[in-house]
Amino acid sequence: MLTEKFWRSYRCVVSGTVGVHALVRRAHEERVLSLLRDRGALSRAQIATRVGLSRTTLSEITGELLARGAIVVVNTDAQARAGSGRPAELLALDPHSGQFMGVDLGHNRVRVAVADASHEIIARGVSSYAAETPWADRLAAAFALIERMGRESGVTYLALQGVGVGLAGPQPAGSAQSGIVSDAFSRRFAAPVLVDNNTRFAALAEAIAGGDDVRDVLYVRLSDGIGGGLVVGGRLVAGRFGVAGEFGHITADRSGDVCRCGKRGCLETVASVPAVLRACRLATIEDLSAALANGDSTAITTIERVATAVGRVLADAALILNPEQIVIGGRLVRAAPGIVARAGAIVEAELVPAGGDRPRIRAARLGDDDGALGAIAALFKPSPLLAGYPEAAGSMQ
Amino acid sequence: MLTEKFWRSYRCVVSGTVGVHALVRRAHEERVLSLLRDRGALSRAQIATRVGLSRTTLSEITGELLARGAIVVVNTDAQARAGSGRPAELLALDPHSGQFMGVDLGHNRVRVAVADASHEIIARGVSSYAAETPWADRLAAAFALIERMGRESGVTYLALQGVGVGLAGPQPAGSAQSGIVSDAFSRRFAAPVLVDNNTRFAALAEAIAGGDDVRDVLYVRLSDGIGGGLVVGGRLVAGRFGVAGEFGHITADRSGDVCRCGKRGCLETVASVPAVLRACRLATIEDLSAALANGDSTAITTIERVATAVGRVLADAALILNPEQIVIGGRLVRAAPGIVARAGAIVEAELVPAGGDRPRIRAARLGDDDGALGAIAALFKPSPLLAGYPEAAGSMQ
Repeated sequence: MLTEKFWRSYRCVVSGTVGVHALVRRAHEERVLSLLRDRGALSRAQIATRVGLSRTTLSEITGELLARGAIVVVNTDAQARAGSGRPAELLALDPHSGQFMGVDLGHNRVRVAVADASHEIIARGVSSYAAETPWADRLAAAFALIERMGRESGVTYLALQGVGVGLAGPQPAGSAQSGIVSDAFSRRFAAPVLVDNNTRFAALAEAIAGGDDVRDVLYVRLSDGIGGGLVVGGRLVAGRFGVAGEFGHITADRSGDVCRCGKRGCLETVASVPAVLRACRLATIEDLSAALANGDSTAITTIERVATAVGRVLADAALILNPEQIVIGGRLVRAAPGIVARAGAIVEAELVPAGGDRPRIRAARLGDDDGALGAIAALFKPSPLLAGYPEAAGSMQ
Repeated sequence: MLTEKFWRSYRCVVSGTVGVHALVRRAHEERVLSLLRDRGALSRAQIATRVGLSRTTLSEITGELLARGAIVVVNTDAQARAGSGRPAELLALDPHSGQFMGVDLGHNRVRVAVADASHEIIARGVSSYAAETPWADRLAAAFALIERMGRESGVTYLALQGVGVGLAGPQPAGSAQSGIVSDAFSRRFAAPVLVDNNTRFAALAEAIAGGDDVRDVLYVRLSDGIGGGLVVGGRLVAGRFGVAGEFGHITADRSGDVCRCGKRGCLETVASVPAVLRACRLATIEDLSAALANGDSTAITTIERVATAVGRVLADAALILNPEQIVIGGRLVRAAPGIVARAGAIVEAELVPAGGDRPRIRAARLGDDDGALGAIAALFKPSPLLAGYPEAAGSMQ
């Protein structure tokens, strides 16, 4: 069960009874935690200088954070002496209680992962709902899942440093939907919340999974919908209006079916799970796996056509962006992994013949919680992948 | 005529007689100049601390730079006192002699622009050569042009801070071609040289011309070839292997003509100047302008088809990158400016209908020296557009 302390702090924030003094102190706490998150262990004197607080005020803040277990004394630095002449204590985030939560609020399920400050995943879970579930009920399902995960794992969320929430669909900066979700999570957890497209978060997670030095990645996800994300020059790309990575609505077939977006022949009408099942006259993704395993010619031909369409779209993107890795993921790829090699061959053929080094095309490494993992990664500010990326909204606005 | 001093320093560098001591001093000079370029005016003490030189060594260096006119005393800072107790002098680059040179070495002409340290263009020029001219002769033409510009403008190139050289065609990092050009310029001018694709430099210049806050720009140039460049999240994009922006080789028509790259139906086979002239059965770009002005139906239909193809390619790129501005430039657009509005309408129609704010599509603002201007801009390190961009190769390698 979530602890009494958690509920007290939660109620304090949501009930509206919280006073100005508490708000100011909470803002100071955030600055201290944020500094320790970015810089690692520091002495009180170093913290006081950097956040611009008096030693007395800072002592109150660090005392409260130590009492709550959000920070710990990790060392004493014999070089740096406190006012009294004794060695200065170094304070740091408690790796066991400074947590980061990633939430992927999809069309029909929510996935949650929680990492400690050392970036270890300490809890994860999933909960399903019907595809048409209203936002309020999706949020309630997410909160119930998070509470259950807390009970099962012993995680208290007391020192939650931030929540990253991935949502399906494009997330233009400042959209109403992202505002609702951000408000709900920041009221619930009194922590900074970063909301973005869930596939973009997945792209970030895949870029990190692809290796430390990978600075240019195209990621496309073939699932119920088709989305994607880009890491360019070592940074996750949101685009000017927050809707970069719309691979699903690039035209794959000008005489194709009408897409849910209103256009005709979008990649999503060719290479999404529903489009493929329709073309193969199959009911489920498991049926598709079985048909491919059995050498069903309709399934095989359809998947070849899908891979060609995906490869052409990715080739255009690769000509523009010259990535190092192209990652293809999603449910369709798990059911029909041959898509990756065939799309890769198309990309290879479409690149300029004398164009030099080629991108590597690979299947996604992470599973269904890629979005939740990427949401956590997006909260780790020191990641160079996120330099210049929009800041999380503060919880105290 | 270039001064005796210039030729002395030039010969000193190219003749191979330069000793180790001179090389070391030149490296120190570079570090001092680079510091002043980035930080503005500093005292000798501040410079000594930051470059890690003794006061005595630094005095020799600054004495030489002052004598050469590369730096000047701009002020005395009454707050900072030199060792003797008198006010410390602040040194800075001389805005009249700290120069940056941009060179655009195209298929059939070289353009050069020179800016002073305040980013004012103080000289520019162009020189033509035949399209098949070998590299050594192109370089000779460039050097002759630069010498003539020096005679005409009085610019001595004595305090050249860097040379940016744009080359036609993709420029994979470390290519032989870019190595030859970089070596030739750094030997000639004893200054750092940055070599990149000339169209990418033009994209940088257009992004800067598009306004200070424009952080996401797609630029495509329709000329003898088709190239492009990207600014993503405020930074110029080279791609993993230095070949980003290859809009010209995106397939526009799968059943189209064979391209010089070996593929079929590349945008370049549809929307480059030679392709358009061939389709219209015209000899020169001036003929095309005249035909459009006279309402020639073949010319009008061809340009409509070209604009549609360009618009579709840009729409795909915009779905992926979600830019703020899309800029279309090049000789073809100057002859047929209607391309911009029509391609813009195609982009508008191809974006996701409910996709929120739209990019602005506009014609390029700069003329034929966009590549040279962008090469200069690329040398101004403080530009946030170039954060993280590859460093210029030092002249003393």
